[in-house]
Amino acid sequence: MLPAPAVKADLPPDPADPVVLARALIRAPSVTPDAEPAMALVADVLAAAGYAVERLDFADHGPRVANLYARIGEGAPNLCFAGHVDVVPPGDAAEWRHGPFAGDVAEGLLYGRGAVDMKGAVAASIAAALRYGRPQAGSLSFLITGDEEGPALDGTVRVVEALRARGERVDACILGEPTNPSAMGDAFKIGRRGSLSGILTVEGKQGHVAYPHLADNPIPRLVRLIAALTAAPLDEGSDFFPPSNLEVVSVDVGNPVFNVIPARAEARFNVRFNDHFTLASLQAEIRRRLGATGLAHHLAFRPGASESFRTEPGPFVDMVRAAVEAVTGRVPEASTSGGTSDARFIKDLCPVIEFGLVGRTMHQVDEASPVADIVALTQVYERIIRSYFAR
Amino acid sequence: MLPAPAVKADLPPDPADPVVLARALIRAPSVTPDAEPAMALVADVLAAAGYAVERLDFADHGPRVANLYARIGEGAPNLCFAGHVDVVPPGDAAEWRHGPFAGDVAEGLLYGRGAVDMKGAVAASIAAALRYGRPQAGSLSFLITGDEEGPALDGTVRVVEALRARGERVDACILGEPTNPSAMGDAFKIGRRGSLSGILTVEGKQGHVAYPHLADNPIPRLVRLIAALTAAPLDEGSDFFPPSNLEVVSVDVGNPVFNVIPARAEARFNVRFNDHFTLASLQAEIRRRLGATGLAHHLAFRPGASESFRTEPGPFVDMVRAAVEAVTGRVPEASTSGGTSDARFIKDLCPVIEFGLVGRTMHQVDEASPVADIVALTQVYERIIRSYFAR
Ligand SMILES: [Zn+2]
Ligand SMILES: [Zn+2]
Repeated sequence: MLPAPAVKADLPPDPADPVVLARALIRAPSVTPDAEPAMALVADVLAAAGYAVERLDFADHGPRVANLYARIGEGAPNLCFAGHVDVVPPGDAAEWRHGPFAGDVAEGLLYGRGAVDMKGAVAASIAAALRYGRPQAGSLSFLITGDEEGPALDGTVRVVEALRARGERVDACILGEPTNPSAMGDAFKIGRRGSLSGILTVEGKQGHVAYPHLADNPIPRLVRLIAALTAAPLDEGSDFFPPSNLEVVSVDVGNPVFNVIPARAEARFNVRFNDHFTLASLQAEIRRRLGATGLAHHLAFRPGASESFRTEPGPFVDMVRAAVEAVTGRVPEASTSGGTSDARFIKDLCPVIEFGLVGRTMHQVDEASPVADIVALTQVYERIIRSYFAR
Repeated sequence: MLPAPAVKADLPPDPADPVVLARALIRAPSVTPDAEPAMALVADVLAAAGYAVERLDFADHGPRVANLYARIGEGAPNLCFAGHVDVVPPGDAAEWRHGPFAGDVAEGLLYGRGAVDMKGAVAASIAAALRYGRPQAGSLSFLITGDEEGPALDGTVRVVEALRARGERVDACILGEPTNPSAMGDAFKIGRRGSLSGILTVEGKQGHVAYPHLADNPIPRLVRLIAALTAAPLDEGSDFFPPSNLEVVSVDVGNPVFNVIPARAEARFNVRFNDHFTLASLQAEIRRRLGATGLAHHLAFRPGASESFRTEPGPFVDMVRAAVEAVTGRVPEASTSGGTSDARFIKDLCPVIEFGLVGRTMHQVDEASPVADIVALTQVYERIIRSYFAR
């Protein structure tokens, strides 16, 4: 963990207005992994509101990653809002209708990189917490990282480690990733599938195509191994999850000529898997399918795999659903679809539910969120805080 | 066709000594496609022996390619010796026991790039022809190219075209490629398999692995197409040929990341095929196998494909077999195995049979031929010439 940097941000005039704060965050550039200006703004806003702000920066796997944990109130229960202020690069800024870091509002839309993913949601959670103030019993906290869009090795995973190491109690967490496919109230996420990547390699013996008996072509074996790997579905899905799915994402030999049999062929795959599997049982199933072919091969799983997880049905899930329904008038689906998020780390600390803005324009040119959605999201978060501490 | 260059070579003291001539040819560098020094030597030796020497150089597909056609005698029958004086690069010259262009003889071996493939055989054929002299009835001729090891687009194929265009009569041809796997007398070649290359492409739709329903992975389809292409042998071989053989030589996607389903996958293949197929019927069979899968794909055959061919059993084949047996004491196999050679072009001019040195060291460091083999090959060629004109 690194000492906190000395940078100070200009506070926006009213940080309890989520749109004002979201615009200020968009104007504080933070293309991953250099999120310092936006992180400093979050730190100063929370400190000014009475939060005990800690910076938990790490630089063990690359450039310094800015992280923050801030808390207000005493003891349990501790409701935490998590998020990230780093953003993906804007691409060609000239293609944007409004500058990606201008924070323009036009025709009811807040434009900018991060408007949806997820400075808009970070602003909504801070605004909601500031409106609520200090809990009379228990704590409100924030876990904000500057590396979710990058390698994510010195981000949330390290903060969770540090908090667990010192016995910091966190009872429930809301992560503000965009969870709604097309309109506010579509869905919240109660879990995520796991992810496992691997490289399958077959070695042969190089030789001239005219003398195949002197060579050993690895490609037919690799093709049969891929066929064995993908022949049957891994499962049919479970009560809460879509089916596990294996995709072969690349096959590569790199032989530039037509008259040489190559020495080596490789395939890369990724599996998104549900709670039918653990990482261990999935790896075993993959080994079993490949082994059943009787064909020599080498299999290497990639680091960074994650288990699937799910927040159990119960009062926390019901509370989030009720808050979304009360504000949007729609009953959100409890979803587990989509990619991974920092929820895969937070689940080691406490139950986590994700609910944020509408994801349609995230990572794209002209990323934008309706101002009304940011306002609605702030109301959802405020309702969640109120019901949580009313229990 | 280009005007002949003015370069003149120093004649070796006794060009009817095949080893003297082979050493002089090795010392005349001719790494493909720049074969001018070695070609000039051949031209001067033949001209000095009374041959009418024509240069038939072309530069339509790249740098100038040196070619030569030379004839002595009048009218039919015309027995032609074909060959190439270009050589593959020596690789790291420091790895050679003897300099690749030194032409050293040590412990009974002639070392050097081209000793086996095929300056040794060109020297043997010229020495045999010089010893025989001018046929009393009929002609002896040489067709020598400077681009057999390279793209071969301006080499033998163009000379054959030019000779056919002017109605030059050639009745039989001996091509001196190395045909013996391990000892003189092993084999001569009476034909070659055809060669066909192609690229099989499958288009899909790129997308994130977490949302496979929004993408279309081309890899499973490509794998099934490859399986269909390779499931059954093309044939079991024929009376004169080994089985046709298809090798998938590369499969490429080039996707660097594990979380993206790629848009496109491609496979490259080459078929070496026998007289069960023509190029047209083989292409039809490949299309049929791929089409039977019902899977969308794109298939492109590469230019430069060649038909299989075979010189029919008869007096010419018998004469070559008898000459080899008389000199080596062994009955050579009439083979059609191995890669392609310029015989695929010469067969459009006249029946062609290949017989040369022992191929074991060709294209390698320390390429070398026993001097005794070069002497024996010269004797074989001389016997062929004598029996040919004695008919
Ligand atoms: Zn995000
Ligand atoms: Zn050759």
